Amino acid sequence: MLSLNVWTTKRWSLPEAVAGCARFGIGGIGLWRDKVADVGLDVAVTLIKDSGLEVTSLCRGGFFASPDAATDNRRAVDEAAALSARTLVLVAGGLPPGSKDLAAARENVLYGIAELAPYAAERGVKVSIEPLHPMFCADRAVVSTLGQALDICDQLGAPNVGVCVDTYHIWWDPRVYDQIARAGDRIQIFQVCDFLMPIPADALLGRGHVGDGVADIPGLARAVAATGYDGPVEVEIFNQEVWDAPGDETLRTLTGRHAEHLARILP
Amino acid sequence: MLSLNVWTTKRWSLPEAVAGCARFGIGGIGLWRDKVADVGLDVAVTLIKDSGLEVTSLCRGGFFASPDAATDNRRAVDEAAALSARTLVLVAGGLPPGSKDLAAARENVLYGIAELAPYAAERGVKVSIEPLHPMFCADRAVVSTLGQALDICDQLGAPNVGVCVDTYHIWWDPRVYDQIARAGDRIQIFQVCDFLMPIPADALLGRGHVGDGVADIPGLARAVAATGYDGPVEVEIFNQEVWDAPGDETLRTLTGRHAEHLARILP
Repeated sequence: MLSLNVWTTKRWSLPEAVAGCARFGIGGIGLWRDKVADVGLDVAVTLIKDSGLEVTSLCRGGFFASPDAATDNRRAVDEAAALSARTLVLVAGGLPPGSKDLAAARENVLYGIAELAPYAAERGVKVSIEPLHPMFCADRAVVSTLGQALDICDQLGAPNVGVCVDTYHIWWDPRVYDQIARAGDRIQIFQVCDFLMPIPADALLGRGHVGDGVADIPGLARAVAATGYDGPVEVEIFNQEVWDAPGDETLRTLTGRHAEHLARILP
Repeated sequence: MLSLNVWTTKRWSLPEAVAGCARFGIGGIGLWRDKVADVGLDVAVTLIKDSGLEVTSLCRGGFFASPDAATDNRRAVDEAAALSARTLVLVAGGLPPGSKDLAAARENVLYGIAELAPYAAERGVKVSIEPLHPMFCADRAVVSTLGQALDICDQLGAPNVGVCVDTYHIWWDPRVYDQIARAGDRIQIFQVCDFLMPIPADALLGRGHVGDGVADIPGLARAVAATGYDGPVEVEIFNQEVWDAPGDETLRTLTGRHAEHLARILP
């Protein structure tokens, strides 16, 4: 099932994104908490329920170095529960201000997830650790590889803790195929997005439609499918040009690229 | 021993860099082939010999996807031999134009080094594989982690093939301390340079003086020293501001930072 992550059509409100999915026959929607907050949680819950869309992810909890991380992450879990989200995506957060102690920051992530996992389990919420590309290690996520995310899963041994596999972040990793196989049924959500070259001035925005960059997304999708994953393919693109394009144009490209590159692998 | 990589003082010619090292009591120099070519190999050899400087590296061979890689890499070996360089640094090169077959590109690197290693050994030249930060995977180096570089070393089993450890490229890696220990005496050269945030518009230039960025360089240096490495600490910085500064100012900063952060670890 194809899913639209709402940040792909950044200018659209949540109701506009929901309507867009209906127009293009997209069955899933990946939510961000800010877009949910814009309309209010209750309105969002009703809107999604009425639409019949599956909430394929809620982005995001994490940022474990923040002073209010514990409180905010519990709120994120509550929202994920209310929205019946398939998973709450956890972005680990970077180094604390001024710190260079990466090992301590990583240990803190482990503790943070260990604390959050039972709270989430009690509410029927799965959480997925998302490794981010190493260029975001200092400021966004000290979890940098799929192997590292799975090591955390192994250490916790909590059945509701898994991983988010996003092609943009992991395509370069020499161990990625081994680690996707190792992940097995712990892949809670598969996000697709291409890695554009050159990296733009704002490194966050170098994400492109499937096929526009350098990542072998069909190859990664085949590896994900080989684990038995038959869940959504969620398209999450941060890119100023994509954001400037009319939403319908973006959805046309997105559905077209899915049909061309991925539909035979993950229908 | 502290070493100046000549690209740190990019505006200086080779004779100017050699004179700068003498003024600041720097014992080693890391060369780039373009700067050697500017004065001619014979002149460079004489200049270095007369200066008493150790050539701590020659940058660079590699780029195995290029059509003339085999010929050019042999020439690089010849130059390294003439200059008595401690090691010839190999930067693997990226994906061939239009290709997304990372596995094939990586296999091609293995073949390329396998072919080059005996030629280098016959001339008494060591070659070091340099893993580059994953953000350069597509265009500069499909060797992205120290573990991957060591896997190549293991597969080749050639005593003259080792690794170049550059703090800028590897600081983020969750496995880096294990892999430095694994490298053991295969660390042919230790390059230092900090990772600046935010990443600048030209991602290549986000390299800074030791202490200006987010990498725990003393921690990495301790791990390198723990392998028994007592070789040079070579400072290689690509940074427009550093390049715009007068060379002597750069050398003052560089020697000061070495004294402050590294001299007790790797004198």
